[in-house]
Amino acid sequence: MVKKILIDCDPGIDDALALALAHGSPELDVVGVTTVGGNVDLEHTTRNALCLRDYYGMDAPVARGAGRPLVREPRTARDVHGSSGLGGVVLPEPKSELSGRHAVDFIIDTLAASPGEVSLTAVGPLTNIALALRKEPRVAEWAREFVVMGGSYTRGNTTPAAEFNVSADPEAAAVVFGAPWRTVMVGLDLTHQARATAEVRAGFRGLGRLEAELLTPCLDFYGGHANYQDEGPAIHDACAVAYVIDPGLFEAVPARVEVETQGRFTSGMTVTDFRAPAERQNALVPTRLDTDGFWRLVGDAFRAVAAGLPG
Amino acid sequence: MVKKILIDCDPGIDDALALALAHGSPELDVVGVTTVGGNVDLEHTTRNALCLRDYYGMDAPVARGAGRPLVREPRTARDVHGSSGLGGVVLPEPKSELSGRHAVDFIIDTLAASPGEVSLTAVGPLTNIALALRKEPRVAEWAREFVVMGGSYTRGNTTPAAEFNVSADPEAAAVVFGAPWRTVMVGLDLTHQARATAEVRAGFRGLGRLEAELLTPCLDFYGGHANYQDEGPAIHDACAVAYVIDPGLFEAVPARVEVETQGRFTSGMTVTDFRAPAERQNALVPTRLDTDGFWRLVGDAFRAVAAGLPG
Amino acid sequence: MVKKILIDCDPGIDDALALALAHGSPELDVVGVTTVGGNVDLEHTTRNALCLRDYYGMDAPVARGAGRPLVREPRTARDVHGSSGLGGVVLPEPKSELSGRHAVDFIIDTLAASPGEVSLTAVGPLTNIALALRKEPRVAEWAREFVVMGGSYTRGNTTPAAEFNVSADPEAAAVVFGAPWRTVMVGLDLTHQARATAEVRAGFRGLGRLEAELLTPCLDFYGGHANYQDEGPAIHDACAVAYVIDPGLFEAVPARVEVETQGRFTSGMTVTDFRAPAERQNALVPTRLDTDGFWRLVGDAFRAVAAGLPG
Amino acid sequence: MVKKILIDCDPGIDDALALALAHGSPELDVVGVTTVGGNVDLEHTTRNALCLRDYYGMDAPVARGAGRPLVREPRTARDVHGSSGLGGVVLPEPKSELSGRHAVDFIIDTLAASPGEVSLTAVGPLTNIALALRKEPRVAEWAREFVVMGGSYTRGNTTPAAEFNVSADPEAAAVVFGAPWRTVMVGLDLTHQARATAEVRAGFRGLGRLEAELLTPCLDFYGGHANYQDEGPAIHDACAVAYVIDPGLFEAVPARVEVETQGRFTSGMTVTDFRAPAERQNALVPTRLDTDGFWRLVGDAFRAVAAGLPG
Repeated sequence: MVKKILIDCDPGIDDALALALAHGSPELDVVGVTTVGGNVDLEHTTRNALCLRDYYGMDAPVARGAGRPLVREPRTARDVHGSSGLGGVVLPEPKSELSGRHAVDFIIDTLAASPGEVSLTAVGPLTNIALALRKEPRVAEWAREFVVMGGSYTRGNTTPAAEFNVSADPEAAAVVFGAPWRTVMVGLDLTHQARATAEVRAGFRGLGRLEAELLTPCLDFYGGHANYQDEGPAIHDACAVAYVIDPGLFEAVPARVEVETQGRFTSGMTVTDFRAPAERQNALVPTRLDTDGFWRLVGDAFRAVAAGLPG
Repeated sequence: MVKKILIDCDPGIDDALALALAHGSPELDVVGVTTVGGNVDLEHTTRNALCLRDYYGMDAPVARGAGRPLVREPRTARDVHGSSGLGGVVLPEPKSELSGRHAVDFIIDTLAASPGEVSLTAVGPLTNIALALRKEPRVAEWAREFVVMGGSYTRGNTTPAAEFNVSADPEAAAVVFGAPWRTVMVGLDLTHQARATAEVRAGFRGLGRLEAELLTPCLDFYGGHANYQDEGPAIHDACAVAYVIDPGLFEAVPARVEVETQGRFTSGMTVTDFRAPAERQNALVPTRLDTDGFWRLVGDAFRAVAAGLPG
Repeated sequence: MVKKILIDCDPGIDDALALALAHGSPELDVVGVTTVGGNVDLEHTTRNALCLRDYYGMDAPVARGAGRPLVREPRTARDVHGSSGLGGVVLPEPKSELSGRHAVDFIIDTLAASPGEVSLTAVGPLTNIALALRKEPRVAEWAREFVVMGGSYTRGNTTPAAEFNVSADPEAAAVVFGAPWRTVMVGLDLTHQARATAEVRAGFRGLGRLEAELLTPCLDFYGGHANYQDEGPAIHDACAVAYVIDPGLFEAVPARVEVETQGRFTSGMTVTDFRAPAERQNALVPTRLDTDGFWRLVGDAFRAVAAGLPG
Repeated sequence: MVKKILIDCDPGIDDALALALAHGSPELDVVGVTTVGGNVDLEHTTRNALCLRDYYGMDAPVARGAGRPLVREPRTARDVHGSSGLGGVVLPEPKSELSGRHAVDFIIDTLAASPGEVSLTAVGPLTNIALALRKEPRVAEWAREFVVMGGSYTRGNTTPAAEFNVSADPEAAAVVFGAPWRTVMVGLDLTHQARATAEVRAGFRGLGRLEAELLTPCLDFYGGHANYQDEGPAIHDACAVAYVIDPGLFEAVPARVEVETQGRFTSGMTVTDFRAPAERQNALVPTRLDTDGFWRLVGDAFRAVAAGLPG
């Protein structure tokens, strides 16, 4: 049965790939894309979402969300994603129009309309999700599941302790992990297993315009960042979508995750206690990825997207 | 000219008196009442707002808001306000119905509809205001002014360092004081000048049902709290409304106010720097109240309310 | 009966006056002076202590202590005390030599030698006292009493929340207030009642060299700081010594004092809970000063010092 | 050439083994043992140090140090080390007497006496070292090198974020890492490579009384803790001593280490930045152990100790 998925994102190179994976997967029905400021500012993430909707030929509405974190000052990851957010990719001006609703209301209304049916997946800072939970706490009960790309149980990337999406809005993350649902935390320990190596990229050959116009410039740009020189870039966000498609590709361990909001050097860290008693567990933490299975999923989806590119 | 006022509150005994002051003042047009969890939980503050609307004969819609703080766990001040929130007052079941809109949207839409015209006044925890600012940042520009009852520049009441409304949701207060408007902080140092002494209460005699059914049970209950035994209870929230009616009753000093969200013993403190350079000032802090003028205003308004009590 | 007093200080203008008060008081026997970095760096505070010993003709040994706070980076109050620490005062090169012992050992040994007899008085950052307590916990039991000039129960001076001595080494202050003795906290709320007004200074006329060489340049410099323009400078440190001489000049209230070490805007604040139950009280907080009595004490002592100036 | 080593410790099972390694190594001359409260309280760690001195036949003086952390309340690891600190080991009452000097003075004097010659090695909470640095800052310049068993660059053991020795006294650790020397941080990521597996323990057979009276009861007790069930216990403290003996057994990476003292969930974490520019680096972090070489070193030393057991 096809699963409904609502993707909250901040495209963002790996967001673009995650959207392609979702759109190209027959297992998923993308019911909406909401945007948040993160990798780059909200104007760019929203514009990129609309461009990608046109480019991939997606039907799902795009709704604009929060331009800055719940409490703190905004900061971006322009060094990783380029000032436009999509590295060297140049897409035509968007023809799609935004949903009239704010992302927060779009999330609330979409989940309210189909309780228990929509997988909520967040691959950017968690501001929209936190605002939605505070405006309508039943969001936690209406979501079929909640999967987030963010955090880490060992080391971070923005700082030695914190991953970007969580450290960009630690208070929002604290709200999200504190909500009465089980957060699936697809963190860096997992996503660093999903690297677009030369071999992986070889598998994307023959994808025509998708390869030439999107995959190659994205991955060239992304892979050029100092973080990734040796092993190829980690395609973080796609891992969260892959979890929604096929959790069987992941080994996962239940845990208590607390988000540090008070530290001097650790703000935004996801402190993960694998020994927490069952009644304290609030998260499921994928620790191991079936890499072959993952790339097969991604390859199949990319081929489907490539075949269906409009225009 | 009559000023439009939107009151965000958590009734609460002094909220009830603040609403009476606003409703009974010819200088004000109450365009809406929004509720938030605070003195007691959201169900009770919302019910109380509806009851008071009926009782006073107000026209303004009541919209329900956030049931818990932006980030932290909720806590109430039941010891001060009674478990119902109105001490010993018993009002009939509300006949009024809630606005269909969430308080956050009610605030946004009301301010958007009349930019520069509506005085936004918050006399509870600042959750709704923070959510509104994050969902629609232009709220800060649309408000005619923003007046909050909360904080202190010397000592607190919930803790030695922090006042209740701010300490109940420090992150929301940080958002509010960080927004690009000038917050008028009517804090404890000011409101402790507005005490319902025996002499003040004598001035309320002859107000009939209002006195018997509301003022007396409110003030008896409120005054019974240990904080207030000697000098009569401070009518905190009414001071913020009085500021909107007549700022001339107040001496006020510009300052930089920072909300402590990280302290172990100081969380929710409003750290007030009167020496901040002009470009860093974000608040106007009333420090001295024309007590006689204040009680005259209150007395006049209460008489008008008493005269107009429905049924 | 004469009381033994050991003074830990960071001279500093008001330290100089506090030493004069102690030295000139027949009620006190100064058994030692220990120095700490604070108002200015340790080299200067130590040099100043030696100079003042020579100048006043004191017998007590001077022992050098900690040059930097227990955990944090040092910072001084050069803007208030001048770069030498004594404003415009110029004293001859010191002839006195330092005690061979470190201040920490001097404190420990002095208290150990006369358990229950020595009043320990600290008028600088609390680093030496904290180190002594950690090296020899029985210091807390050997001290006859412990009086500190530091902290505040309303507002600070270094920051809106924190007084200089405590904020200069909050962790040391936390150790000191946490020790099993009752700290007498002579804070800003008290010391701001001890202002060297024009009238007070008139009373110092006729003190000859003491007036010309020390009091006038000290108070002119100190009074010139922006903090003090209107009312004359507060002679903070002398208040702590006065408490040791005659606690009857003070009204004092027991309290629980916690030192904030974690806040973003409140670090070094002495959070003072006057409602703490007796078993939680760790401090006695003077709140009101008999100003006339205080200045009489100071005047008498200064006259005695002036009369005995060597050379 | 033989290296002088001063060992600050809190025996503790792995401390006992570290002392044996140091005593039995011809490369080292143990010039002193100082004790600190940690794994168990100071009375027990000091008694254990004296007992071990007698048992091994060591010459070095034992000096007692700080009984509680620099700022915080003490806490122990009795669950890991047993209430006596040495698991099931029973040693005779100590005949050795304590040094007359406090550990802090012993450290200062020993290093002052041979500047540049003594390797200072700390395998307990860092209270003594921090106190020594604050009492005599030149300790940092006098030490030949400073090696600490503590911290981690991924996960902790006391909490998900923090290792025991650092989390037991985070402020002391902050002082130590902030001092102007290069701290060699032998943390959990390294020590978890030094596990006393069945195979390793087989290599200790034939060590007679040392095996029967010390190694077996120590390792049985230690290995019984839930942390270690599968792979054998990690002999943390011995790794720091091994580093002093032969740094060639370790791969190590320079880094900036900050100790978190402010976090809600991360207090005591050693936040390790391997990308810090050279001028910001304050630590050298061993990341890989030549396990075979390590156990060879340990085995040789244990044999030497066994051969020389007195009485």
